[in-house]
Amino acid sequence: MQSVSVSTRGKNVPKSAIRKLIPFAKEREKTGVKIIKLNIGQPDIETPEEFWQGVRDFKERVLAYAPSEGRAELVKSFVTYYNKYGITVTTSDIVVIMGGIEGILFALLAATDPGDEVIVAEPYYSNYLGVAAMAQVNFVAFTTTAENGYHLPAREEIVKKITPRTKAVLISSPGNPTGCVYTRKEMELLASIANEHGLFLISDEVYREFAYDGEEATSVMQIPGTEQCGIIIDSVSKRYSACGARLGCVVSKNKEFMASVLSLATVRLSAGTLDQVAIANCINTPDAYFEKVRKEYVERRDIVVKGLSAIPGVVCPSPKGAFYVMAKIKGVDTEEFAKWLLTDFADNNETVMIAPGAGFYATPGLGRDEIRIAYVFKAPVMKRAMEILAQAIQTFRSLKK
Amino acid sequence: MQSVSVSTRGKNVPKSAIRKLIPFAKEREKTGVKIIKLNIGQPDIETPEEFWQGVRDFKERVLAYAPSEGRAELVKSFVTYYNKYGITVTTSDIVVIMGGIEGILFALLAATDPGDEVIVAEPYYSNYLGVAAMAQVNFVAFTTTAENGYHLPAREEIVKKITPRTKAVLISSPGNPTGCVYTRKEMELLASIANEHGLFLISDEVYREFAYDGEEATSVMQIPGTEQCGIIIDSVSKRYSACGARLGCVVSKNKEFMASVLSLATVRLSAGTLDQVAIANCINTPDAYFEKVRKEYVERRDIVVKGLSAIPGVVCPSPKGAFYVMAKIKGVDTEEFAKWLLTDFADNNETVMIAPGAGFYATPGLGRDEIRIAYVFKAPVMKRAMEILAQAIQTFRSLKK
Repeated sequence: MQSVSVSTRGKNVPKSAIRKLIPFAKEREKTGVKIIKLNIGQPDIETPEEFWQGVRDFKERVLAYAPSEGRAELVKSFVTYYNKYGITVTTSDIVVIMGGIEGILFALLAATDPGDEVIVAEPYYSNYLGVAAMAQVNFVAFTTTAENGYHLPAREEIVKKITPRTKAVLISSPGNPTGCVYTRKEMELLASIANEHGLFLISDEVYREFAYDGEEATSVMQIPGTEQCGIIIDSVSKRYSACGARLGCVVSKNKEFMASVLSLATVRLSAGTLDQVAIANCINTPDAYFEKVRKEYVERRDIVVKGLSAIPGVVCPSPKGAFYVMAKIKGVDTEEFAKWLLTDFADNNETVMIAPGAGFYATPGLGRDEIRIAYVFKAPVMKRAMEILAQAIQTFRSLKK
Repeated sequence: MQSVSVSTRGKNVPKSAIRKLIPFAKEREKTGVKIIKLNIGQPDIETPEEFWQGVRDFKERVLAYAPSEGRAELVKSFVTYYNKYGITVTTSDIVVIMGGIEGILFALLAATDPGDEVIVAEPYYSNYLGVAAMAQVNFVAFTTTAENGYHLPAREEIVKKITPRTKAVLISSPGNPTGCVYTRKEMELLASIANEHGLFLISDEVYREFAYDGEEATSVMQIPGTEQCGIIIDSVSKRYSACGARLGCVVSKNKEFMASVLSLATVRLSAGTLDQVAIANCINTPDAYFEKVRKEYVERRDIVVKGLSAIPGVVCPSPKGAFYVMAKIKGVDTEEFAKWLLTDFADNNETVMIAPGAGFYATPGLGRDEIRIAYVFKAPVMKRAMEILAQAIQTFRSLKK
């Protein structure tokens, strides 16, 4: 009998920076300690009533496969949705996916061959790394910094990362984990680079609704001349606070690209039927829902930024979008700190869970003194969380002296 | 400006033999012709009431992410389900997936590195090919034949396919597209080969409930000594006629393997929450539901086998499981025939849609005179479909003379 062993890639799937501490949290919770989970973008915002109405209205008695490209009513609702934003698309420009990550996977498979390179802005959403591993592509990162609000560096800083193996640029705006909303000029810059060098511009726009202080997210497909290079990755997880719905779409005018995406979608048959029906009805969600949600997030963001900035040695720019804050805690190894928060620290039997920053960077060493916080709970909870964090940082620093 | 182009792998995603004729069907339907769709395993069987009850009972107001490994109540319900079949597993042996195909993808990624080989029995479920392309693995097929009821060939026929790059054997029983139910002896043979050569045995068991004429499906995990090699891929699509639920699980006692699968599951965050809650409640589906469904399928199968066997030059063994029949139509190019059924033929304004056989084979040339039929409609519809098919074969043959 020979032993059987897992593949090299199976062993090396990058761990999610956001989820890898979960086992420690589970152990701690058994001891009765309450953990405020700021590590994951799971908001407490209620899913709109339109979703539940959509579920109730579904009267088919056989829960059948949906078409691989998505149920007609959902695809149509997405067309209506994009038209509202001045993004002119038709149903044939859209393929429904099971969440943004599936969209990134399909986009990478359609844009690259194994060993090809994709340029990303770091810090980036850490789960991208896992998708890159699945698709066997290499990320080449240019760095954005807290000092510059995580906006794009100069054109040449991006262009110099391009090699003969580069096939795409992958960005997210409003950004996870940075909260940065790229300006129209920045999106134009990226489109110009993509067009000049024959690259796809894969634009993760799942936080489109979450832009604050008068900012507006600019879609890649709002930039003229992106018909061939422009790819939108979208998801309803955040838009409708429906993370559990596992739905989104890939959008592009590039017919060859969309044919590949549809072929990939056909391999896995279809996305969930009930979720599709319910999300299709969410097109009827009133604007007031989003305005209320935005107001709520701004309040929470301000609490977090104020709370963090008041801690000595913490640098935290106020982000203009999404619901994350990247903060620098000078002199603190945040990998160690994040784990210690779960294994050792408690204030009045409460602690917080945060995502250490290194997992959001490709460049070794970067992000070691940063954390990502998701402001996904009501104001009083966020206030309390900042209190706990302030005290924890003080205690941790004194332990390390 | 440089042009941007899709990757080689993006262009070459294998088309699903089952779905690739859909555009022709859509065009034809516009002309008012009714198409009986025997190409796809979408049954008309009602999803159990327990599913809808599960949906109605869900009272959470935020549709949140599920844990990456699956919601606790669902994983527990799967443990109960397997225990009923004498398969002893615990919650840590299970990771919930978004349908069988995702399970195959995760299993291939965990078992193989790019360029590795997986041994499959042909004819196999044609979507496997697409997953293999995504995972960059090569299928090496041994052939099973209609004459032998698609049962396994002699041990040496399988063993001789093993090379230093072979990492796994992938089979399905009850089989799609063959309907063949491997005997316990056959499963023991596969396990013995896997153990002797250090291979994973990936066993797609999504049709477990559908074994007829006193046959019982044997799971890989019912065979002693498969703790390291044995991997179950399961799905609720067919079990509960809930193809639109996109749920299943990967099951194994191999901890290293399951750690890789969980890492991959974490990359895509979670499967759908509402589907998980509703399917968890399906554990309460009474046995009578399955007995009724099996009786229904046996009636349909007998109609199809009788109908096909009565057509001159058609060979069709009576399958013991699943809800597919592979039939050989001597002298007919079934690729051409299947398309012609959709573009040209009609009887009383009705035609049928079938899956041509070649897409289920790796060996070039095989399956060219075979078709797969899914007997997923009520007896009168299946009867009428066989009438149409008989007439179509006669007409097609006379055209080709």
